[in-house]
Amino acid sequence: MSAASGVRAFVAERRDQLISDLAAWVSIPSVSASADHHADVVRSAEWLAGACRTIGFPTVEIWHTGGLPAVFAEWPSETPDAPTVLVYGHHDVQPVDNASWTTPPFDLVVDGDTLRGRGTSDDKGQVLFHLLALQAHLAANGRFAPAVTLKLLIEGEEESGSPSLAALLAEHADRLEPDVIVVTDTEMIGEATPSTVVGMRGIVVCQVEFRGVEADLHSGKFGSAVPNAATALARTIAALHDRDGRVQVPGFYDDVVELSAAQRAAFAKLPYDEDTFLKLVGARTVVGEADFSPMERIGARPSADVNALWSSGPATGRAMIVPGTASAELSFRLVPDQQPERIRRAVEEFVRSEKPPGIESTVTWRGQGVRACRVDTESAGFAALTKAISTAFDGKPVLRTREGGSGPEAKLQDALRAPLLFLGVGLPDDQTHASNEKASLTMLLRGAEAAALLWDELGRNGATRTDTASS
Amino acid sequence: MSAASGVRAFVAERRDQLISDLAAWVSIPSVSASADHHADVVRSAEWLAGACRTIGFPTVEIWHTGGLPAVFAEWPSETPDAPTVLVYGHHDVQPVDNASWTTPPFDLVVDGDTLRGRGTSDDKGQVLFHLLALQAHLAANGRFAPAVTLKLLIEGEEESGSPSLAALLAEHADRLEPDVIVVTDTEMIGEATPSTVVGMRGIVVCQVEFRGVEADLHSGKFGSAVPNAATALARTIAALHDRDGRVQVPGFYDDVVELSAAQRAAFAKLPYDEDTFLKLVGARTVVGEADFSPMERIGARPSADVNALWSSGPATGRAMIVPGTASAELSFRLVPDQQPERIRRAVEEFVRSEKPPGIESTVTWRGQGVRACRVDTESAGFAALTKAISTAFDGKPVLRTREGGSGPEAKLQDALRAPLLFLGVGLPDDQTHASNEKASLTMLLRGAEAAALLWDELGRNGATRTDTASS
Repeated sequence: MSAASGVRAFVAERRDQLISDLAAWVSIPSVSASADHHADVVRSAEWLAGACRTIGFPTVEIWHTGGLPAVFAEWPSETPDAPTVLVYGHHDVQPVDNASWTTPPFDLVVDGDTLRGRGTSDDKGQVLFHLLALQAHLAANGRFAPAVTLKLLIEGEEESGSPSLAALLAEHADRLEPDVIVVTDTEMIGEATPSTVVGMRGIVVCQVEFRGVEADLHSGKFGSAVPNAATALARTIAALHDRDGRVQVPGFYDDVVELSAAQRAAFAKLPYDEDTFLKLVGARTVVGEADFSPMERIGARPSADVNALWSSGPATGRAMIVPGTASAELSFRLVPDQQPERIRRAVEEFVRSEKPPGIESTVTWRGQGVRACRVDTESAGFAALTKAISTAFDGKPVLRTREGGSGPEAKLQDALRAPLLFLGVGLPDDQTHASNEKASLTMLLRGAEAAALLWDELGRNGATRTDTASS
Repeated sequence: MSAASGVRAFVAERRDQLISDLAAWVSIPSVSASADHHADVVRSAEWLAGACRTIGFPTVEIWHTGGLPAVFAEWPSETPDAPTVLVYGHHDVQPVDNASWTTPPFDLVVDGDTLRGRGTSDDKGQVLFHLLALQAHLAANGRFAPAVTLKLLIEGEEESGSPSLAALLAEHADRLEPDVIVVTDTEMIGEATPSTVVGMRGIVVCQVEFRGVEADLHSGKFGSAVPNAATALARTIAALHDRDGRVQVPGFYDDVVELSAAQRAAFAKLPYDEDTFLKLVGARTVVGEADFSPMERIGARPSADVNALWSSGPATGRAMIVPGTASAELSFRLVPDQQPERIRRAVEEFVRSEKPPGIESTVTWRGQGVRACRVDTESAGFAALTKAISTAFDGKPVLRTREGGSGPEAKLQDALRAPLLFLGVGLPDDQTHASNEKASLTMLLRGAEAAALLWDELGRNGATRTDTASS
């Protein structure tokens, strides 16, 4: 029996164990964004630490740097010069709106191949497949230690913007020192179309508040002669894009590295069907920046998004006031080589210059933001990854995608000075961050196979530690 | 002692009674917009009915047509052919935001000449001065019945848009039949500058909802390729006005009667100091339609106001979503001869034509709206009113103002086919509809004097019933 078939057999055999572990973990509502659930995030960390100990990790620690706890686990290789692989994921989950779920969000509901519940895909299911992978790797190879020194860093604040991650990485730098970082909360194109992420957009997020009058005023008595913060905000937001969907913030595109012909060809290879996409997103038409395909817009073009609008007074109207304040949450997705700091300054200058007379404005940034990150597709590590994934998916070619979303990956890459690889098996319809989140059991099992094979490949190829982040 | 000095002496003597009556009535939180307070609105009607009986009204009834109760009271004149005067006001009040009041909103707090509390100015204080006026009118003239047949109609739903008023007027048409309607919830320019309202803008109000995607989506994964309802709404709102503050809804100005030279001259007479106005409204600059003064913009020009903005998802951001829906409350203030129905159609057509591709929209109107109304300044009734007010204010001339706000006055005028007069003594800084509402005791006493003298004047001049509303 080959290593691959041994891994597959082992993984298949532990299918029910994966489900019952996931059910136990999903039942802990580890919502990091809600103070009411912070005790649950602690319980979630303890649950994961226990699971790591159960499968035999010699070192398991809960790290408390700053905010909510992260779990660190380490299983050294016994092979001399084996590379160190750091698996990064998270055990906190997004908030839920109970009313819009069809099943209780914190009960794992198994429906055929679908595992429904908050965190099944993002990211508890994906962390768990790595634990299963390690067991399969050891069992299939008859090993007592993995082919690589395996470290897990599973944080508890990813869904809240990873506010303590930088401090945590700094405090424990000497415990981490990876040769490669494997990130595990991304997705593939489809069950039959394996893929890996080769780039991820960065982001800066702000809240813009406009103030026109000191307090809400009667709109009939005063509206025609005083600055209306809501109208002013709308006019400023309207100026964010031109009719072709290009962002109008001066300097916004200055540092953008345009896509190469090869990169555009890679995008063209990705399966894309407009009807399927429209059905997935529940839209009537695709929109966005002219001259780019929808996949290019999402993966490789920077953007300006309005995430929320609100004004002072009753939350949903019925007051006939001139609202004293109107606010928007705006996020800007970044691509190489846009610099968060420079974009922040450009947006501030744009707001200053666009706001009408009589309006005062405040732009409040949520953290420093994060730049875009890229995978070195020429590296030995990337070759090992694509081989492992391809094998787990019965020899299918592994396509290359770019994530439109933004995580802490660039922070990891910068702090740990190690290249990134993405091994995530979410699916586009997993409803992560939305109601009725689910994971595909088949995909989690394939993920476990791919990870088990990846440790073999990396052990064999010896992804060597590098002191420069990949370009 | 002249009638005027007798009235003044009587009113001054009853000062403390007015305060204690107002304290009792203000303590009843008759917030018509809140179902929690509907029982209080009923109590408020009962309190007023009791007060009317106490001062001797032969007929006092509580009318329950449709919604919350109105109070009707009638005191017939004994003079043959005496005209019938209907005083219109309301006993319901605006909601309160307790946290932003400096004193408990439903405790009357007397601070020198300031009476602070919800409803002191709008409209309980102003209804009460009419009761005091009637007593003064009888006492000063040694009468047992007023010089006019006096009817009060004090409704309980004005702050909720008077939804039952039309039905109530229809049901009781034969009990009302006024020769003139005296409206009592308006304001004057200042304590030393008596004025009366000669026009009031109309209004139509709607909620515009834009839908881009069926459910909120992850903005990173999808934002660059799907319609964003918030961005689209902002662009449509931005199109509402040009840079000169002109409303861009096609046809909006078609029926507007332009101001005459005489009317603009009347506006020019009104005291207006920009610094005082800016301080009053808490603004940094005056804005609005080019080529018109601030007072003209507010009183005599139609407008489009954004009253509220909101989007789906968390009420104040922190979600990084493409919101599935974004909404605005828009109100349009109307001047003669704009027709609410025509404006509603024009706004709907504007929204349809402005919304970007991929957006579905709904425009929901709050009721039918109301047209603007005007006072016939050539009538005998208007002459009686200005004489009474001038006398109460020590012979000062009575200036003519136009209210930017909108009430049910046009409905009253149309249903009862009688001309309107405005006798209100609120002040511009009374904070009606806001926190820390107050009334000036001096103004309430002046109002009582003016009303007492008005019954004399109207009785003498015999404002005769007319079957056409004034133009």
